[in-house]
Amino acid sequence: MTINLAENYGFCFGVKRAIEIAENTVGSSTYGPLIHNSKEINRLQKDFNVGLQEDINAFKKDDTVVIRTHGIEKQELKHLQDKDVNIIDATCPYVTKPQEIVEEMSDKGYDIVIFGDAEHPEIKGVKSYSKGRVFVVLNQDELENLNLKSKIAVVAQTTRKVENYLKLINYLIINYKEVRVFNTICNATFENQDAARDLAQKSDVMIVIGGKNSSNTKQLLSIAKEYCSDAYLIEGPEELQTQWFEGKNACGITAGASTPQWVILQIKDKIASY
Amino acid sequence: MTINLAENYGFCFGVKRAIEIAENTVGSSTYGPLIHNSKEINRLQKDFNVGLQEDINAFKKDDTVVIRTHGIEKQELKHLQDKDVNIIDATCPYVTKPQEIVEEMSDKGYDIVIFGDAEHPEIKGVKSYSKGRVFVVLNQDELENLNLKSKIAVVAQTTRKVENYLKLINYLIINYKEVRVFNTICNATFENQDAARDLAQKSDVMIVIGGKNSSNTKQLLSIAKEYCSDAYLIEGPEELQTQWFEGKNACGITAGASTPQWVILQIKDKIASY
Repeated sequence: MTINLAENYGFCFGVKRAIEIAENTVGSSTYGPLIHNSKEINRLQKDFNVGLQEDINAFKKDDTVVIRTHGIEKQELKHLQDKDVNIIDATCPYVTKPQEIVEEMSDKGYDIVIFGDAEHPEIKGVKSYSKGRVFVVLNQDELENLNLKSKIAVVAQTTRKVENYLKLINYLIINYKEVRVFNTICNATFENQDAARDLAQKSDVMIVIGGKNSSNTKQLLSIAKEYCSDAYLIEGPEELQTQWFEGKNACGITAGASTPQWVILQIKDKIASY
Repeated sequence: MTINLAENYGFCFGVKRAIEIAENTVGSSTYGPLIHNSKEINRLQKDFNVGLQEDINAFKKDDTVVIRTHGIEKQELKHLQDKDVNIIDATCPYVTKPQEIVEEMSDKGYDIVIFGDAEHPEIKGVKSYSKGRVFVVLNQDELENLNLKSKIAVVAQTTRKVENYLKLINYLIINYKEVRVFNTICNATFENQDAARDLAQKSDVMIVIGGKNSSNTKQLLSIAKEYCSDAYLIEGPEELQTQWFEGKNACGITAGASTPQWVILQIKDKIASY
């Protein structure tokens, strides 16, 4: 059996940047998980004494807090600022952008539509920057029940599929006078997705590595499954099952944007040993 | 054979309004044809002494000029204003709107993309309001050769099919950061098109009445042909051919937005006489 890595996979620019920031801030704590990968968070704790604090009230004056890659809510940032905490912002610039757009557009009187998962930390953060009406939706049905203003600004969660974003936008364009569309989907996501699609077409088993609660990893799995029915999402080598590879000729491997390279190589080596 | 009129057809709001304005401006001239229908223009001349002047230099001080439904270029309007001509504006408000949008958006530094026919008077007029870069395109191929700014504003010719507009917009959204979409396609066009589609599905011969150089009439023909292969575009009853109706059970009739009701009824009566 051949084993192939996708042409693009794993850590994106924003995650690499956030890890570097954390590594350079020894003794700090992140507010919420820095990225969606518990293994990497453990490594940062062990090697760089970077802690993880989920309770915003636990921070005290002169503590150093690292803001995670997905960003936090505007009012939480305000809360930390008011406490005189040292704030090191590791929010991905591709997430800061929709935060700024939502703030500016709501200020100009636009209704805001966010294409994304209302429960995702990135979207909770982006949404919090609206000064007016804001709606988080995942599909057209949810738009049909809204009575929006004639001027609408739209942003997307950075990790969403552009095809689905276009479906929502097309509905809005047909039904409203002005739709101001910001393409906030991240190129890294496109590139990992495109490479997963290419690789899945040439594979008879696909291993997708990443957090099971990571939105972009789940999307890689969904793309892999479109072209290769035997596709599995795992977080580490211990989840591999030998029978997945029985009678297979070509195994493809891809990984979500929060998956460290060392985890990927461990898994690749274990598959090669079968 | 049954003969059915489409549920919506013929004159739109803007054309009805322009004719009313012309009828109330006895002794004036229109600069260029008021609407795309020579029969109606002849009637206005005969019954209301409303002339047609194609040469802008022929207008003199204190002449009264009616601006046609499709609008004129900004510099032509300026030229008439400078000559102290009495200007009666019969530009359809749905055409004035994209003119204003193009002026405002180009002023704000957006690259302008107009979805439409560069040779159509409406589009020549709309385009003339841009203070910066402006591109008139009909399909995605034309967009691929452009190197646009990251901020793009898009308007459409009022009579275009929204499906084709969405194709262009989707291409832009995938490739650029901000696409500000104005849905300037007119509801009347939608309504006539939807009704033509419905009727064509129930008909085995379709008669589309309107100017052969009228963009919205040609689109009705194209929609009719999708569902009914025997569809014909005519301007008046004299073009009807009896063999079109031989062996047919259901004749559908629709008409472009510049077609007067009296022409439609003449044609319907002639078909009924076969």
